Amino acid sequence: MPRIAEVRDAAEPSSDEQRARHVRMLQAAEELATEKELARVQMHEVAKRAGVAIGTLYRYFPSKTHLFVAVMVEQIDQIGDTFTKHQVQSANPQDAVYEVLVRATRGLLRRPALSTAMLQSTSTANVATVPDAGKIDRGFRQIVLDAAGIDNPTEDDNTALRLLMQLWFGVIQSCLNGRISIPDAEYDIRKGCDLLLVNLSRH
Amino acid sequence: MPRIAEVRDAAEPSSDEQRARHVRMLQAAEELATEKELARVQMHEVAKRAGVAIGTLYRYFPSKTHLFVAVMVEQIDQIGDTFTKHQVQSANPQDAVYEVLVRATRGLLRRPALSTAMLQSTSTANVATVPDAGKIDRGFRQIVLDAAGIDNPTEDDNTALRLLMQLWFGVIQSCLNGRISIPDAEYDIRKGCDLLLVNLSRH
Repeated sequence: MPRIAEVRDAAEPSSDEQRARHVRMLQAAEELATEKELARVQMHEVAKRAGVAIGTLYRYFPSKTHLFVAVMVEQIDQIGDTFTKHQVQSANPQDAVYEVLVRATRGLLRRPALSTAMLQSTSTANVATVPDAGKIDRGFRQIVLDAAGIDNPTEDDNTALRLLMQLWFGVIQSCLNGRISIPDAEYDIRKGCDLLLVNLSRH
Repeated sequence: MPRIAEVRDAAEPSSDEQRARHVRMLQAAEELATEKELARVQMHEVAKRAGVAIGTLYRYFPSKTHLFVAVMVEQIDQIGDTFTKHQVQSANPQDAVYEVLVRATRGLLRRPALSTAMLQSTSTANVATVPDAGKIDRGFRQIVLDAAGIDNPTEDDNTALRLLMQLWFGVIQSCLNGRISIPDAEYDIRKGCDLLLVNLSRH
């Protein structure tokens, strides 16, 4: 029988004070994973840097995977916010989506250790135990829909975006692992947008 | 300064006896990862089951990542062999590639723990330290070229196949993590073939 601690859900912040603490924990995790590889980031170190008790950290993030999936959710949110502020002006949805993804990619590649930590955690996370994994998928979809100017996506639109996300994650991962160069990664994202978004519905 | 042991290359088998031992080590790794998750597979356990000294195992596979990337290379080789024996008869290259990938996917999903171990290791492997990672890319490309009946791929063909591989790995990973169902995975592979291989050169 699994122990309760292994299957319980992560807590969600409700008061302002809790939210501030939540942000501090995510920020501490982000900083530490920028400095060193995921395997060497310790939960007690994250708690210490965030100024919270270790029990508090585990209450919100039952595992390191939960923690770094939440960091990834935060990053996706930030990419969405940045995009909303600086609307991309492009003739067609493929160009607009490409612009957003390439900017996001450059941002992620600037902090390779952190991006590796987030991608590793995301690809390891089972949606049944780490519900935040679903937020990444939804966040990504919203960013691309906004970039493409689509308010009411069709089933085909959603499929194309899901495939684009798989591809985008794979391209970043390959780039982080030295299997393709940064220019190759950008070329692959360009081709991915052109080929996968060809039937995107217009608004 | 890194220790020599961390950066040395993996040994390659040359005699028949060495090759037999190599196969036994890969088989032991495959069996253990079918039974339990990657984090709980111990190198000394693999050595014991393969009937080799722990030093021998480490000489061929300097880390667990090296070992499971090699298991993945083996799987890709087997998929290629199976395909060569049972040529797919299809009207067009997209259908033929889809058939091969869907069969391979079903094979991989039958042993979810093993597939998770291989994909995790592959996505963690840096090509500079784990040269076998490149063999996976080349093996996959050859399988798809054979299925599509392309002898002399163009630059565009190679790009499309690289993107398809990123997408395929992502789809399997999402399926293993419970984020999409098996029918959804097959649908996504179908759509991926249709959209990414649309400009494939005919032979």
